[in-house]
Amino acid sequence: METQGKVIICRAAVAWGAGEALVMEDVKVDPPQRLEVRLRILFTSICHTDLSAWKGENEAQQAYPRILGHEAAGIVESVGEGVEDMKAGDHVLPIFTGECGDCRVCKREGANLCERFRVDPMKKVMVGDGKTRFFTSKDNKPIYHFLNTSTFSEYTVIDSACVVKVDPRFPLEKMSLLSCGVSTGVGAAWNVADIQPGSTVAIFGLGAVGLAVAEGARAKGASKIIGIDVNPDKFPLGREAGISEFINPKESDKTVHERVMEITEGGVEYSFECAGRIEALREAFLSTNSGVGVTVMLGVHASPQLLPIHPMELFQGRSITASVFGGFKPKTQMPLLFTQCLQGQLNLDLFISHQLPFKDINKAMQLLHQGKALRCLLRL
Amino acid sequence: METQGKVIICRAAVAWGAGEALVMEDVKVDPPQRLEVRLRILFTSICHTDLSAWKGENEAQQAYPRILGHEAAGIVESVGEGVEDMKAGDHVLPIFTGECGDCRVCKREGANLCERFRVDPMKKVMVGDGKTRFFTSKDNKPIYHFLNTSTFSEYTVIDSACVVKVDPRFPLEKMSLLSCGVSTGVGAAWNVADIQPGSTVAIFGLGAVGLAVAEGARAKGASKIIGIDVNPDKFPLGREAGISEFINPKESDKTVHERVMEITEGGVEYSFECAGRIEALREAFLSTNSGVGVTVMLGVHASPQLLPIHPMELFQGRSITASVFGGFKPKTQMPLLFTQCLQGQLNLDLFISHQLPFKDINKAMQLLHQGKALRCLLRL
Ligand SMILES: [Zn+2]
Ligand SMILES: [Zn+2]
Ligand SMILES: [Zn+2]
Ligand SMILES: [Zn+2]
Repeated sequence: METQGKVIICRAAVAWGAGEALVMEDVKVDPPQRLEVRLRILFTSICHTDLSAWKGENEAQQAYPRILGHEAAGIVESVGEGVEDMKAGDHVLPIFTGECGDCRVCKREGANLCERFRVDPMKKVMVGDGKTRFFTSKDNKPIYHFLNTSTFSEYTVIDSACVVKVDPRFPLEKMSLLSCGVSTGVGAAWNVADIQPGSTVAIFGLGAVGLAVAEGARAKGASKIIGIDVNPDKFPLGREAGISEFINPKESDKTVHERVMEITEGGVEYSFECAGRIEALREAFLSTNSGVGVTVMLGVHASPQLLPIHPMELFQGRSITASVFGGFKPKTQMPLLFTQCLQGQLNLDLFISHQLPFKDINKAMQLLHQGKALRCLLRL
Repeated sequence: METQGKVIICRAAVAWGAGEALVMEDVKVDPPQRLEVRLRILFTSICHTDLSAWKGENEAQQAYPRILGHEAAGIVESVGEGVEDMKAGDHVLPIFTGECGDCRVCKREGANLCERFRVDPMKKVMVGDGKTRFFTSKDNKPIYHFLNTSTFSEYTVIDSACVVKVDPRFPLEKMSLLSCGVSTGVGAAWNVADIQPGSTVAIFGLGAVGLAVAEGARAKGASKIIGIDVNPDKFPLGREAGISEFINPKESDKTVHERVMEITEGGVEYSFECAGRIEALREAFLSTNSGVGVTVMLGVHASPQLLPIHPMELFQGRSITASVFGGFKPKTQMPLLFTQCLQGQLNLDLFISHQLPFKDINKAMQLLHQGKALRCLLRL
């Protein structure tokens, strides 16, 4: 490529302050250093983690200027020294939590928080040299990275441990959904809960992650999938994702877990909390069968609160667990997931509610913020 | 047997009020009803659950008069109608949490809280007819049962689902230890944590259960076992159980998890909370490696408190879990455990610190209460 080894100037959506509209501007993108790759981003969407960072909900994580974005797909523009598993032209997904393949966690089955490249919301520079690869084109001011990825830019530099190859015959546009939300939900159902055929499932919160859990549960042959949301507008799409019964907590004097107990005669085998509400987390826990129940936490909960569970309740045959990126080891396990999607085990079309050009990114942020979009695909 | 079908009058230690000395007196023991067995108890020891019930720590569980005791071994005196898997003369252990073999939980691998015979501290009568099988010999007053077992009596009636056969060639005296505490600890290490060879372990609280965890961890080839207790008198026996390093929380300004991190370079793979202290539970959680850590809760914690863990901490690659009776399905899994003990995989002798005749049961209660006894074996 003619750009290899050179600084690229391209368009990016830069966050300059908490809650301020992103500014579409020219930025300089340095060449990839050792074990890094530079990607041309073709599609990116917006996930709640981007929204939360944009609003600056966690002050300790604020850093400006910054390029947000982590759910995306693209093509390798060039690779840095030592990168063996990718080359220019490869179709790839950036993944916000990486896999070095070599650390204690990477070598262990069932664990995916790589010691070197795990997701770190505090991190804003590259691992290799502690510097940024983005600079403002006007005055060369460093622009911070986000979640190992920074995909709200036509070009970005990422550690190769955080990039996964996709077979070029697969539709990259849809595959981009597997870069975060859908994989998180499907993996929670498959890797974390390990849903068995014929079992019952309750899903609290029917956003993209909740619907992905439903898709995953349906694919594994769940006999009954109960969807819970305070917004009944979400029910029709939920039905498409395989949800068979719906509960609107606002529509009954009974608690949600009492209603789940009635519907299932003793509770579901698996519940998933995707609403990010602490009350929902407790209801999800109490909705499971005492004896075999498993609750998987997927929502984000403010830190000062404790888990709303009494220690003795863990002796009642109910467990609670959580995972990042659905427990998938990105490099090792994603290729199979891509194939399963292509074979139709999961319906990815369901998740794209809107499509917009990249320049309309602030409009896309608002759509998600207002709960109007599931995923708005931005085309770069 | 000449006693079959008849009421037996025998000696029992009866609790008449919270914290009052047990009264050794004659009681009437009814014949076993359908699916029940009547046992002659030969050995019983005292576990912290007995102590707690004796003190009446949980008011809702108080019921008098009552026969406590659940860790024991004995011989079947007679069986009720429908009991197929046992006969008079069989050597057996009573188990406080049963296995019907037929319910949703019993049919599921990895779960052991049988829907019909799981441990229930509120239960005080037989499942079959809601009545007791014990009566005072003087005035026929019903005497309540405890934890499905009531072993502080020369004879007791138990649901056959809560009784496990032992090969008569095995020493029943030692096997009695497997009726509760030792199985709870060993099972936590084997079934719940599933300790892998070469891994590191931290054990908080070095009573019988904690030492049983150590024995279990050593048998699975743990490379380093750290024992934590505020009482250094417990360290020599801990060393015999395979513990290689000890931490006395009173002897350092650092927190225990900081010291565990130093000793293990990043935390243990498995930690076990056997102290029943909520601060120890949090230290145990923080002592594990972020990425692969598993904490198993074994201690009992007062109900008003919440789990001392923030929801977001579950996303850091650490999990917490708990189990009853070490996750063992009594009827299905205990026979293998008996054999493993006989083969010397576990050293049961370690746990018997005292031996006394049954009539000295109040002395034995005091020994445990004062932390002087690990297990005091009472001979009936
Ligand atoms: Zn995301
Ligand atoms: Zn790694
Ligand atoms: Zn016990
Ligand atoms: Zn059962």
